[in-house]
Amino acid sequence: MAMIGILGGMGPLATVDFMERVIDLTSSAGALRDQQHLPLLVVHLPHIPDRSDALLGTGESPLPALLRGIDMLNRNDVELIVIPCNSAHHWYDAMCAESRAPIIHIAEASVAALPAEVTRVAVMATGGTFHCGLYQRMLAARGFESVEPDETTQQHIDACIRDVKAGKIGASTEHMARALDWFARQGAEAGILGCTELPLATQQMDAPPIPMIDSTLELARATVSYALSHGWNRAQ
Amino acid sequence: MAMIGILGGMGPLATVDFMERVIDLTSSAGALRDQQHLPLLVVHLPHIPDRSDALLGTGESPLPALLRGIDMLNRNDVELIVIPCNSAHHWYDAMCAESRAPIIHIAEASVAALPAEVTRVAVMATGGTFHCGLYQRMLAARGFESVEPDETTQQHIDACIRDVKAGKIGASTEHMARALDWFARQGAEAGILGCTELPLATQQMDAPPIPMIDSTLELARATVSYALSHGWNRAQ
Repeated sequence: MAMIGILGGMGPLATVDFMERVIDLTSSAGALRDQQHLPLLVVHLPHIPDRSDALLGTGESPLPALLRGIDMLNRNDVELIVIPCNSAHHWYDAMCAESRAPIIHIAEASVAALPAEVTRVAVMATGGTFHCGLYQRMLAARGFESVEPDETTQQHIDACIRDVKAGKIGASTEHMARALDWFARQGAEAGILGCTELPLATQQMDAPPIPMIDSTLELARATVSYALSHGWNRAQ
Repeated sequence: MAMIGILGGMGPLATVDFMERVIDLTSSAGALRDQQHLPLLVVHLPHIPDRSDALLGTGESPLPALLRGIDMLNRNDVELIVIPCNSAHHWYDAMCAESRAPIIHIAEASVAALPAEVTRVAVMATGGTFHCGLYQRMLAARGFESVEPDETTQQHIDACIRDVKAGKIGASTEHMARALDWFARQGAEAGILGCTELPLATQQMDAPPIPMIDSTLELARATVSYALSHGWNRAQ
């Protein structure tokens, strides 16, 4: 029986949101009974040191803890690994080097989902992910132009993420609306929700001012597509 | 680092709902950052044979698959096991016999949450769980009287569960409302949602006619209470 490994807990609600998207997409693909869904092994480790703090030079590296999670998934024979945390992908190459199972890259899946007619793309991510340029490099390589937040807007994004992690979804949505308004005024034609806490804040919004690529959803789509094409929804 | 083991996927959305309750309860207990949440290992195995069919004599036993899940959790050194599926608890003793980690009993946690002043309690569960008398025996042992569904009402409960497993929450709520109305007319003073799909149907209802004990929530409360009392929310 093939299992999808999820290295999660970064943060806790984002992992649950990701799992729910995987289940919903599998239902949409025709699953009516439990036995038509996908087996998962979720190593949910919220104690992994904060990724953004490490990238900003204010906290310890999460890499040893990330590698312990990758090792646990491989020891349990998962056939694929996904990590619903964008910031953790700064250490993507190091994790791949230690993993037998392939790892889907959340930022690659997200950038690939941008419509071709878009040019200017707002980058919304943790301060650390923004600082290390993960999305900016990937957007430039595919011919998109990054719209980078000013200091106040990044503070709204960081506050939004912090509120979701604390379970305060209502407050998080207000910060998100302020950030999106700013990006729309800068001429951004689309935005990437490049942190898996951010979609939890935007799910409550009626009409966001710019279309958004949801990194949690794009990772879930890539995961379900891979798994269904390998027949992992069928009991072996 | 102590981990809570979850034997899940029965069904998929019920497991996600359970995880979300654990996270919400941990946030309510004061967690503001990822690192203050509880480590989980989720073995999510939707391919486990249908528990209710087995209890009704129309399907194969899930016990071998349940024991493989229990074994995987123990091999990964979890310190506690919980199973957000009521029907699976028919095989509780057999699973405990093969597990080093203690297993919290979902029905014990649920019956313990009934208010003392209540006498007549509606039993809402899969056909199989109802047939094997899991809740009826436990209620009788604690001095409560079971209100058992008639055939039409059990059909509504089964249809509700089936709809949730197929991702059709709207349709599931209509079946649940019909069942609850019937139980209220029989003089039930409270009801036990003794299947972890059922709370997903009732979450959309404005004012249920009788107060309900939610087995998913009671299992989550028992889990978080155990884990916080052991300090598992603190990074070791």
